[in-house]
Amino acid sequence: MQELIHLGKAAQCAAQKLATLGTDTKNAALLAMADALVSHTEFIMSENEKDLAAGRAAGMSVSLLDRLALSPERIAAMADGIRQIAALPDPIGEVLQETTRPNGLKIDKVRVPLGVIAIIYEARPNVTADAAALCLKAGNAVILRGGKEAIHSNAAIEKVMLEAAVAAGMPQGCMALVKDTTRDSANFLMRMNEYVDVIIPRGGAGLIRAVVENATVPAIETGTGNCHVYVDKDADLAMAAEIVMNAKTSRPSVCNAEEKLLVHKDVAAEFLPMILPRLADAGVEIRGGECVRAIYPTATPVTDDDWKTEYLDLIIAVRIVNDLETAIAHINEHGSKHSEAIVTGNSENSRKFLDEVDAAAVYVNASTRFTDGFEFGFGAEIGISTQKMHARGPMGLSELTTIKYVVYGTGQVR
Amino acid sequence: MQELIHLGKAAQCAAQKLATLGTDTKNAALLAMADALVSHTEFIMSENEKDLAAGRAAGMSVSLLDRLALSPERIAAMADGIRQIAALPDPIGEVLQETTRPNGLKIDKVRVPLGVIAIIYEARPNVTADAAALCLKAGNAVILRGGKEAIHSNAAIEKVMLEAAVAAGMPQGCMALVKDTTRDSANFLMRMNEYVDVIIPRGGAGLIRAVVENATVPAIETGTGNCHVYVDKDADLAMAAEIVMNAKTSRPSVCNAEEKLLVHKDVAAEFLPMILPRLADAGVEIRGGECVRAIYPTATPVTDDDWKTEYLDLIIAVRIVNDLETAIAHINEHGSKHSEAIVTGNSENSRKFLDEVDAAAVYVNASTRFTDGFEFGFGAEIGISTQKMHARGPMGLSELTTIKYVVYGTGQVR
Repeated sequence: MQELIHLGKAAQCAAQKLATLGTDTKNAALLAMADALVSHTEFIMSENEKDLAAGRAAGMSVSLLDRLALSPERIAAMADGIRQIAALPDPIGEVLQETTRPNGLKIDKVRVPLGVIAIIYEARPNVTADAAALCLKAGNAVILRGGKEAIHSNAAIEKVMLEAAVAAGMPQGCMALVKDTTRDSANFLMRMNEYVDVIIPRGGAGLIRAVVENATVPAIETGTGNCHVYVDKDADLAMAAEIVMNAKTSRPSVCNAEEKLLVHKDVAAEFLPMILPRLADAGVEIRGGECVRAIYPTATPVTDDDWKTEYLDLIIAVRIVNDLETAIAHINEHGSKHSEAIVTGNSENSRKFLDEVDAAAVYVNASTRFTDGFEFGFGAEIGISTQKMHARGPMGLSELTTIKYVVYGTGQVR
Repeated sequence: MQELIHLGKAAQCAAQKLATLGTDTKNAALLAMADALVSHTEFIMSENEKDLAAGRAAGMSVSLLDRLALSPERIAAMADGIRQIAALPDPIGEVLQETTRPNGLKIDKVRVPLGVIAIIYEARPNVTADAAALCLKAGNAVILRGGKEAIHSNAAIEKVMLEAAVAAGMPQGCMALVKDTTRDSANFLMRMNEYVDVIIPRGGAGLIRAVVENATVPAIETGTGNCHVYVDKDADLAMAAEIVMNAKTSRPSVCNAEEKLLVHKDVAAEFLPMILPRLADAGVEIRGGECVRAIYPTATPVTDDDWKTEYLDLIIAVRIVNDLETAIAHINEHGSKHSEAIVTGNSENSRKFLDEVDAAAVYVNASTRFTDGFEFGFGAEIGISTQKMHARGPMGLSELTTIKYVVYGTGQVR
């Protein structure tokens, strides 16, 4: 693990320099990195082809090959993403609070970078560009540990970006890709407390679990979404149907997609015949208990395991509930604290739902699909935190920072 | 570990109720808890006597016995601490940010409780009252795992406080002391991700390390302070001497005490003879390298290990540095990112120090001893975070909260 210790030391050293780099230098470097990606399209594509060839030889599925594949358009889109990050306000240096104490001490609470951020991710090479740009803009050094399927693509992107960054005034070591893609390297990185300040896993439930289990570096858990839409008895049912269709079918593989539908008993007989055939027509498998199947007989019987499961697929489990309290209790018991919605015209009920449901984002009369850094107006997103510590929900630039108390004295002692 | 799972479930259930409890109810309950401690002084003292007897039988040191001992005055002080917490503003419900998106979605970022907080601590029973009151005021349920030395005292305090809290409208399960004080119970608690949102260790370096190593629950590392005072060549040396004396000797056993003194070479020959005899007179052991011993021959030779060590005792290691850059590099290499001070009249040098030293609190011309929730004006403190995630430096009530995005729609889909 000498490679990792070497990268860690270099990153720590770079982080100290990045912390005091001006906004203009950081932005110029980001723009240079974006331009470099475009001007090296051919090189990146040829390295990507090595990964694709290896993937095809290993029998990788068509959808995974598609996620891995780069094209001039996709490279241009990565570059545009970096340009957008350059255009965002710099969070660093913001004074969040100023206090003058009775003894004359002036205490400023100032936003500073976290330091060294490690990102562990899976197949998609665009994460390399995206995550690095976000970390660097917030003044952090970044250690990237991507999956072995994308190693040539990731290494090409890193090489091109790092050269451009350094030429534009960023320190050597500001970004580094871990070339060792074994599980050992990931595990070692998770325990490099001396050099890494925060670790963020981006990927499937297995990766997240491995980080939570093994990391001694403070970690931000991201992305598991077992999201519910609850249709209240006072719902506008036409609106509810649009919300459910959107939340379930617009992009079923993402964490903010709906996985469960809860319907108040008083409107179930009217609403389920409206929505379930539409979902089925869109290819969604409906799962439900006896009460649901009494209304919609072709539903698959639901099991206890279903309620905790994030399908990430065209499947929905449906439950008829007696009242709002039961819906809230069901969500708080089975949900993953990601995004939860109520559809209702009753403001007392929506208030209760918004107050009592424990999740990063709670909605009234809107689709859960909006839980996203761009949709929330952050201009970028490094992931969606499903833990409560440090960051919750979509994480933008300011979630990649910490604070420092800067204290001005005139000789005060205690 | 059935006891812990039972406490965890009860705490989670209580946390849901606490999250929506009004400020008035919380404050009334806190005041009732304070009164109950005082009115049950005799009971608490008699339980405390059991711990003291066991401690004496086990040969506990006088200073540890003193930390363990309760008196009517100490119980009254605990009660006053709780009353002060009741008087603080309630952080819960504060809207930190309001956004209306182009699609009409209104997004409020609202401060909410963390949920269930576990505190693992060592001998002092006053932590039981103090930590519980802070957690409850911020709407959190709290699971307390104190040391076995104080088990009877802790159990008595918990019993009295919980009865008063429940009588005043707080839910059962809102606070609980773990009666099993084995290492196994602590390790199990650190991995109870299903029921515990955040874990905070309060104690010595061994405890903190155990939590960092073993916890899968998100943890906040607290309290290790290898703090430096750097006396610049442009320092007011009389001021520097007062600051060093205060930082080193006013309370050497606490984390914000000075452990290291760095002095610019141009003022060493004048400053060291001013300060080192004064420190020695106050009982401080001076450690230094050859250059220091050339000026102050009775200093003990310093070893490499000294620079990383938090003595928590009347010992100081002294180094003469060639310039400000060397001082900053020394601190960033050896410090624990807690509290670091420069004494200088040169504003360019202080700016560089404040910007480049990576620590929770950085000072110019003041003692490091001010890093404390009360001294910072937070009105309370649950500990001092030395990590960068979630909270950094003294943690008050708002560090015991997280946020929730509350989204108001009118049928928006994506």
